[in-house]
Amino acid sequence: MSGGELLVEYPHRLSIPTRWKDNDVYGHVNNVEYYSFFDTVINRYLIAEGGLDIHRGEIIGLCVASECAFMASLAFPETVTAGLRVTKLGNSSVHYGIGLFAEGKETAAATGRFVHVFVDRSSRRPVTMPEALRAALSAIQISHGSEETR
Amino acid sequence: MSGGELLVEYPHRLSIPTRWKDNDVYGHVNNVEYYSFFDTVINRYLIAEGGLDIHRGEIIGLCVASECAFMASLAFPETVTAGLRVTKLGNSSVHYGIGLFAEGKETAAATGRFVHVFVDRSSRRPVTMPEALRAALSAIQISHGSEETR
Amino acid sequence: MSGGELLVEYPHRLSIPTRWKDNDVYGHVNNVEYYSFFDTVINRYLIAEGGLDIHRGEIIGLCVASECAFMASLAFPETVTAGLRVTKLGNSSVHYGIGLFAEGKETAAATGRFVHVFVDRSSRRPVTMPEALRAALSAIQISHGSEETR
Amino acid sequence: MSGGELLVEYPHRLSIPTRWKDNDVYGHVNNVEYYSFFDTVINRYLIAEGGLDIHRGEIIGLCVASECAFMASLAFPETVTAGLRVTKLGNSSVHYGIGLFAEGKETAAATGRFVHVFVDRSSRRPVTMPEALRAALSAIQISHGSEETR
Repeated sequence: MSGGELLVEYPHRLSIPTRWKDNDVYGHVNNVEYYSFFDTVINRYLIAEGGLDIHRGEIIGLCVASECAFMASLAFPETVTAGLRVTKLGNSSVHYGIGLFAEGKETAAATGRFVHVFVDRSSRRPVTMPEALRAALSAIQISHGSEETR
Repeated sequence: MSGGELLVEYPHRLSIPTRWKDNDVYGHVNNVEYYSFFDTVINRYLIAEGGLDIHRGEIIGLCVASECAFMASLAFPETVTAGLRVTKLGNSSVHYGIGLFAEGKETAAATGRFVHVFVDRSSRRPVTMPEALRAALSAIQISHGSEETR
Repeated sequence: MSGGELLVEYPHRLSIPTRWKDNDVYGHVNNVEYYSFFDTVINRYLIAEGGLDIHRGEIIGLCVASECAFMASLAFPETVTAGLRVTKLGNSSVHYGIGLFAEGKETAAATGRFVHVFVDRSSRRPVTMPEALRAALSAIQISHGSEETR
Repeated sequence: MSGGELLVEYPHRLSIPTRWKDNDVYGHVNNVEYYSFFDTVINRYLIAEGGLDIHRGEIIGLCVASECAFMASLAFPETVTAGLRVTKLGNSSVHYGIGLFAEGKETAAATGRFVHVFVDRSSRRPVTMPEALRAALSAIQISHGSEETR
C-alpha cells in the first residue's frame, strides 16, 4: 500500500498541537484546519531545510491545488503528527503527500495532497526552483515505484 | 463546458465579504480560507433551505472529502461570490460543486468539491437524510448530462 | 450613556456575515473572532475612506492594544453589524471604539477598544498620519463630551 | 514589577508553535491570533489539570472580557511560549494573566488578561466552580501582594 495511510510512509514529521478554536460546533477539528496543518508542515520544512525566505525572498510558493480525505476525527487538546513527503518534483512545481495522525496512532486520520508552484514574488510567473530548495524536496521524495497515482 | 468555471453554472450563490486576516503574508486570501468559504456557503444553504439544525438536530453533516483548484487570487477587502450546486445525491451523502468568484467576475478564481455524509449526532453512523434536506439539495442538483466527472 | 452599548452611538457600520467555523464547541462565535470583526471593520474603513494601501503603502497601522467586553452570544449563521467610531485621535495613533450587534438588535452583544499606531512599513517607526487618513478618522470621531474614559 | 512582563512571573507555561496562516499581510502574527493563544493555554490547563470536560461536562467557561497589550512582533515559524497565572479567583469567575514570549526571550512580546465565568452548559447561568477546578486555579494564583491592579 502506498496511499500514505501509514506513518512509516512519511520521511518528515512535525508535531502540531491543536488549539481551542480548531474545534467546531460538532466537537472536533474543523475540516478547514486540516489544510492549515498541511500549509504549516510544508512551509516549516521549506524554511528550515530549503532556505525559503517568506519575507524577503525573490521566490514564493503558491498553492494551485489541494485535497483531503477525512477518515477519523481529531480534537483539541490533542497533538497531531503531520507526515510529509514529495510525490512528484518538477522544475517549478512540487506535489506533496501529507498524512495527519492522532496522538500515538500509526494509521492516518486524514491524507491529503498539495501542489506548490514556485513563482517570482513580483511577477508571479513560474520560475525554476533554487538548488537548495530542490535538494530539500528531493530528500523526502518517495521512489517512483511507490508514487501516488490517484 | 461543465467544470464549474462559470458563475452561470451555479443555481445558488452567496456573497462572502473577506476579512482582514484572510490575507496571508503574500497579500492574498490564504488557500485554507477557500475551504472556509466552501463550508459557509454549504451550511448556510442547509440551514436556510434544508432545515438543518446545527445545535440540536439529530443529524449532522460530516465532511469526508474536499478539494480545490486555485486559478486566480482573491484578496481582502473584496467580496467573494460563492456558487453552489449538487453534483451527486445519495441516500446519506451528497457531493457539492463550489465556485469562488472575485467581485464582478463571471469566471471562477477557484473551483472545488466537497462531500458530506449525514450521520446521527451521537453514534456518528450514516443515516438516510430527511426529506426536507433532500428536497433542498435536489433543487440545486445539476442534470446528469452535465455532471462533473473528474 | 456613552459607553458604546447602543447602535446609534456609531457613525460607521459594516455588516459582517458569520462563517461556519466562527462557532466553537459551545455553539457560538468564539471570543477570538470578535477581534477579527474589529480588525475587519477598521481596515475596510481605512482602505475605502482613508486611502490606506495595505499592499504597497509606505504607512501601515499596527495594533498596540485591544480589549473586548462580551455581553451576549453571537452565532453562525447570523449576520453581525459592527459599529465603528474614533474616541481619540493623535498624530500617529488612533483609538477606536467598536460595537458588535446581533441581527436586528440596537444593544451591543460586545463592545471593544482597539488602538492603532501608524508606522513606516520598513523601519516600523511611528509616523504622522497622512491628511486623507486623518480626515477619514475625524469624520467618525465622537465629540469630547461623550468620549470614552475607561 | 508585577505586570507580567517577565517569564518568571508565570507558574504555568505552554509552547505554542505558530502556523503559516497566523502571519498576516504585514509579515507577523495577526493580533487576533494572540487571543487564540490565550484561549489555548487556558483551556489546555483547565482540561489537563482542572478536570474540565469540554464535550460533555455540565459546566463550561465563557469569556466575558479580554484584553491585550502588544509590545513586540511574533512571526511564523517561531514557537511562542505562553505563560499563565491566576490574578483573581471568585466563586464562579476567574481572572487570568497571560504573557506571550518569543522563542528564548525572558521579556514578553505581549501581555493580556482574560476573564472566565463558569456557567451551567444548558441554562448558561453562573455556577460555583467544582473543587478540582478551583484547586487547579489556586495552584497558579499569584499572591495578593503582587496582584495585577490595572
